[in-house]
Amino acid sequence: MTDGAGPKVADSAIARLIERVGTDAPLGVFDSGLGGLTVVRAMRERLPNEDIIYLGDNARVPYGTRSPETIVRYALGCARELSSRGVKAIIVACNTVSAVALDRLRAELDLPVTGVIIPGARAATRASGEAPVGVLGTLGTISSGAYTRAVASFSSRTEVLGQAAPLLVALAEEGWTEGEVPRLVVRKYLDSFFGPEVVEGFGLPRASKVGCVVLGCTHFPLFRELIEREVREIGGRGIPVVDSARETASDVEAFLNERGMRSRRDEAGRLELLVTDKPRSFEAVASRFLGGAVGGVDLVDLKPE
Amino acid sequence: MTDGAGPKVADSAIARLIERVGTDAPLGVFDSGLGGLTVVRAMRERLPNEDIIYLGDNARVPYGTRSPETIVRYALGCARELSSRGVKAIIVACNTVSAVALDRLRAELDLPVTGVIIPGARAATRASGEAPVGVLGTLGTISSGAYTRAVASFSSRTEVLGQAAPLLVALAEEGWTEGEVPRLVVRKYLDSFFGPEVVEGFGLPRASKVGCVVLGCTHFPLFRELIEREVREIGGRGIPVVDSARETASDVEAFLNERGMRSRRDEAGRLELLVTDKPRSFEAVASRFLGGAVGGVDLVDLKPE
Repeated sequence: MTDGAGPKVADSAIARLIERVGTDAPLGVFDSGLGGLTVVRAMRERLPNEDIIYLGDNARVPYGTRSPETIVRYALGCARELSSRGVKAIIVACNTVSAVALDRLRAELDLPVTGVIIPGARAATRASGEAPVGVLGTLGTISSGAYTRAVASFSSRTEVLGQAAPLLVALAEEGWTEGEVPRLVVRKYLDSFFGPEVVEGFGLPRASKVGCVVLGCTHFPLFRELIEREVREIGGRGIPVVDSARETASDVEAFLNERGMRSRRDEAGRLELLVTDKPRSFEAVASRFLGGAVGGVDLVDLKPE
Repeated sequence: MTDGAGPKVADSAIARLIERVGTDAPLGVFDSGLGGLTVVRAMRERLPNEDIIYLGDNARVPYGTRSPETIVRYALGCARELSSRGVKAIIVACNTVSAVALDRLRAELDLPVTGVIIPGARAATRASGEAPVGVLGTLGTISSGAYTRAVASFSSRTEVLGQAAPLLVALAEEGWTEGEVPRLVVRKYLDSFFGPEVVEGFGLPRASKVGCVVLGCTHFPLFRELIEREVREIGGRGIPVVDSARETASDVEAFLNERGMRSRRDEAGRLELLVTDKPRSFEAVASRFLGGAVGGVDLVDLKPE
């Protein structure tokens, strides 16, 4: 797992880990809230027989406005909670934590740790060719420059055009993902990725300034089809939409396969959902993010760091 | 000033205060971000010759997700900063702080302190008659029950129907206050205040479940005319829309007049804007909230409590 500049976990450490927890141990996923559930959903599609424990630290959401020190402290709390439950790897399904805390998590834990930014940035650099990468994200993610740095680590010539799309977060949390309002909001945010209309009002395709569009926020896979449709509508051709959640799941699969860490079981993996606040209201929204019913949500108290 | 359960500042304390700072001293207003500027705007309309110092603690926005202890600590920091600049009264232009920290601010400061909830709740109770009061607010304000308690303090028989409207906050901060998207969003949130359509699709007025609609978030005055229009459109008659920002300004005016604390000057009052982060980006958005150009924004470091 290669998100951020952290070193890979040495093979001897992996061997000790597997001896301790076994290959059937669950994967641990955490986020500051429920956005990371889109990563869980993608992982369950790719890795249907793996158990997953998801921890949403919704008592302290959002992380984006906190100081880096506080984000590291909160992230360590989440990761240690998952570690104490015997997970075999940790997936940071949160852009803020992926940008700020990955190195510290790797230094402090005897576990493979990955984030959501590098997988998305890698796929985007490939998909974009020579053209700039367009990134939709939260205000925090865009202004942090995390995707710009990540894309630069794959290709120094590839530019990044960032577009903050805060209304999409609010729409996703309200479950308002279809109809005229999300369509107009998506249109507005995509606008900066395209050149002016050739003949105004004639609906001719506009020139694209980007080679692909990255869903750089864990909430945005809920709008993937809508964004794909609107990109086609505006640009008149298929500019690929890169889904960080799917790319992360694909990276996790490759990593587990390479290291012989896949579960050997045949049955469907279990999903355990933990939150730090309001389990009932989390449950209601979670089914939307997971694309299906949720078996219950447990409340957990994190130990103070 | 009567927001919350705190006692009025005694007349002798007012006399000492005025001896110290003078009646021309500025009014101090603070909020966790820029929403409170709608209160400043309303105050400048009502009290054009008063100087105002506004402090937006945008480095730590949003307060709504913090613990009560943290909110009190942050609010004390803001209030002490304003107090050290010689203000004659403090207006808490933030629903979260008004709900949580008003008593503590009054206990710790030798200044009159008011908030935004009681003025809005008082006006709403009057405007609603026997009917329930409808409140639009953030998720935090609605789930805190602050308006329910405040309305109950004026009339034990008046019910409160709360509706969280988080998309309006995001739209306001993006400056997207006109057109189809805000209209449809406002429609969606107003829906719970009205009964079913009489004959579906015929556009007949629907029965109103509320006697008035309170703009229970400092961002929402930006949508006042739109909300008034949609309320009329749906309900077919003028259900009053109560603007907490205006009601607060009106309360401040009455208080200053009663206590002989109005500025004696003839010229237009000055406005000083202070923030704890990103003064340039604050300036750009602030002009929208104030309804006019802004003369510059200064960065300030708050002393740790």
